[in-house]
Amino acid sequence: MNYDVAAIRADFPILAREVNGKPLVYLDNGASAQKPQVVIDAITQAYSHEYANVHRGLHTLSNLATEKYEGTRGTIARFLGAKDEEEIVFTSGTTEAINLVAYGWAMPRMEAGDEIILTIAEHHANIVPWHFLRERQGVVINWVDVDANGDLDPQAVIDAMGPKTKLVAMAHMSNVLGTVFDVKTVVDAAHARGIAVLVDGSQSAVHMPVDVDTLGADFYAITGHKLYGPSGSGAIHIKKDRMAEMRPFMGGGDMIRDVSRDVITWNDPPMKFEAGTPGIVQQIGLGVALEYMMGVGMENIAAHEADLAAYATTRLKGLNWLNVQGQSATKGAIFSFTLEGAAHAHDVSTVLDKKGVAVRAGHHCAQPLMEHMGVNATARASFGMYNTKAEVDVLVDALELCHELFA
Amino acid sequence: MNYDVAAIRADFPILAREVNGKPLVYLDNGASAQKPQVVIDAITQAYSHEYANVHRGLHTLSNLATEKYEGTRGTIARFLGAKDEEEIVFTSGTTEAINLVAYGWAMPRMEAGDEIILTIAEHHANIVPWHFLRERQGVVINWVDVDANGDLDPQAVIDAMGPKTKLVAMAHMSNVLGTVFDVKTVVDAAHARGIAVLVDGSQSAVHMPVDVDTLGADFYAITGHKLYGPSGSGAIHIKKDRMAEMRPFMGGGDMIRDVSRDVITWNDPPMKFEAGTPGIVQQIGLGVALEYMMGVGMENIAAHEADLAAYATTRLKGLNWLNVQGQSATKGAIFSFTLEGAAHAHDVSTVLDKKGVAVRAGHHCAQPLMEHMGVNATARASFGMYNTKAEVDVLVDALELCHELFA
Repeated sequence: MNYDVAAIRADFPILAREVNGKPLVYLDNGASAQKPQVVIDAITQAYSHEYANVHRGLHTLSNLATEKYEGTRGTIARFLGAKDEEEIVFTSGTTEAINLVAYGWAMPRMEAGDEIILTIAEHHANIVPWHFLRERQGVVINWVDVDANGDLDPQAVIDAMGPKTKLVAMAHMSNVLGTVFDVKTVVDAAHARGIAVLVDGSQSAVHMPVDVDTLGADFYAITGHKLYGPSGSGAIHIKKDRMAEMRPFMGGGDMIRDVSRDVITWNDPPMKFEAGTPGIVQQIGLGVALEYMMGVGMENIAAHEADLAAYATTRLKGLNWLNVQGQSATKGAIFSFTLEGAAHAHDVSTVLDKKGVAVRAGHHCAQPLMEHMGVNATARASFGMYNTKAEVDVLVDALELCHELFA
Repeated sequence: MNYDVAAIRADFPILAREVNGKPLVYLDNGASAQKPQVVIDAITQAYSHEYANVHRGLHTLSNLATEKYEGTRGTIARFLGAKDEEEIVFTSGTTEAINLVAYGWAMPRMEAGDEIILTIAEHHANIVPWHFLRERQGVVINWVDVDANGDLDPQAVIDAMGPKTKLVAMAHMSNVLGTVFDVKTVVDAAHARGIAVLVDGSQSAVHMPVDVDTLGADFYAITGHKLYGPSGSGAIHIKKDRMAEMRPFMGGGDMIRDVSRDVITWNDPPMKFEAGTPGIVQQIGLGVALEYMMGVGMENIAAHEADLAAYATTRLKGLNWLNVQGQSATKGAIFSFTLEGAAHAHDVSTVLDKKGVAVRAGHHCAQPLMEHMGVNATARASFGMYNTKAEVDVLVDALELCHELFA
């Protein structure tokens, strides 16, 4: 594999900085990824030379901004393997995307007693919108557990499907365990029963090639800020037949065809689901970020990270006072862990930070999973396309320091 | 008045560019404003040196990003004259802000037959969310017209208030007519009757000092991209007693306190209403934009624009084939117009663009107002803090060319 990680690192200006006098070792990619210079340049270019509101103008700048903004829709379609860019709805991220489905698709069609299946490993963004339906209209949430390795048996999800099940909502990749779940098997079984499937692709789309056409999920959400793109960018792929079933979520400009005092008609999808002035420059930046990733090659990124994950697994196994959560064979380069002894995850994070190593500590917006694993909090090192084995070594050294300090 | 418009123009890089070989005359500020270099620099700085996700981290970059991001909350409070920054909820703009109120406050408390008062001059962002309530739960929309001058008689709004009225939702400044409405009189009368008031401050906050404490509205929404800030930024000021009445809108990270399989509890406001990874860098940029405006001085900006508006009014009155919509004494520097003869607004916009003049043409997301005025579309020249009298002259020259071409 000819993967020039040094060249890639040079594309990300923040990676040249120090933290607490040490070179930054950024291992908080699961929370948000850093941005390459091409993305920053695209933002600067847009605001400095090509900015205006989109869609509604006829003047040069508005046409220019619209062309670039709408261009990202095609880029996202290509990135996700979607056949038709009209199946791509822009959102501010996965949270808005899942709320769009909850409010626009599920709320008007689910009645008291109808069921939604969630895995215990979901991020709160894929839990709270369904709790709204539970609280507000009596929908029942059916939880499917992961096993001690962090694996999800797709048959357990299938067994949970009943006559009242209307939706399965699941992550493609756990943000805590790193497990890649077998979405395809679940989708096929769900569709055979007329059940829709929403996939939270927040983590997966960052780390491996995704083909929504092959997966076949009804809804597939991604978030731009984890994809090396701007904060506030993102999208969801929605199959056309599901789009046709949805009512609008947010009301405002662009999503209407005609508004009068007493009557209102909607624009065609995907515009029907995009209200108000959108995140113009953020989405332009996301397009550039996805082109950057595709330029490196998603297969190459996946291979590089698999290599990193294997190395990190070996190194972390050498620390017999460290408990890593999740040992799945499909595990990606996300390592959540606790230290035996008195060290709280927050203390671990603070000590690591002194060594320049950025990791997250807490419940990672996955409290039901934390409860299932019997921990309050973990520290999490999550890798990205620019991380190196040398950084794994820095992490391990810093962890050894933690162990000395707190054991 | 010592208002150095040349110095201000020099702060906005895009104003140095040409369009169709002519210097850009950007008069589409009502749709979206351009960005000063300090805002662009703040974005570059954030992504190049200080980026991470906010709130959930303990490492240096996360703390740095959180500090800057949360700093904007205080800046917005100061900009709006809010007493307490905890009354500021971040949103992606006015559209999300008004949908937050519609879904979070109005939807759970309004029953069939309850009434909402809207002015006919509202932007679709302040119409469509209320149409949702009409369609979905039988809420009645009561429209109050503006007169031929584009003025709104506050007594007409007050007269429309009845025992079933729960909310008045109105613009502070019309995006088509430029009229500044007397919100304060409406708020006082509404509160005497226990009626809440939502104010769409999308246009007003750009052009004049706003003091939400004096106005007293329950909800006051602003949108960052019109305030010389990034696309996808914005906020809403919500009084604490109204916040206490609201249920959450979008579900996800940060807005929860605890999530388990069967129970969920909410974070305190304003976080309760902010779900998921927010528009981190956009809101940082918005803070810088508002500091920039306050540095120039909102009174000074208002005076400069009043001067521009007076000059433009005089010049446009000289064109006896031009019909300007709205002649209110409170009219700001927003001019929507039609040309007598065959020139459609879109043709006008296209011809003006050839002369480097960017104006918007269409219904300006205000179709009920258009219908009320008896026009399908207008062209709109909307001024900002960086526009000049010389640009008014360029506009007038270009309009004269239109008249020659189409008369």
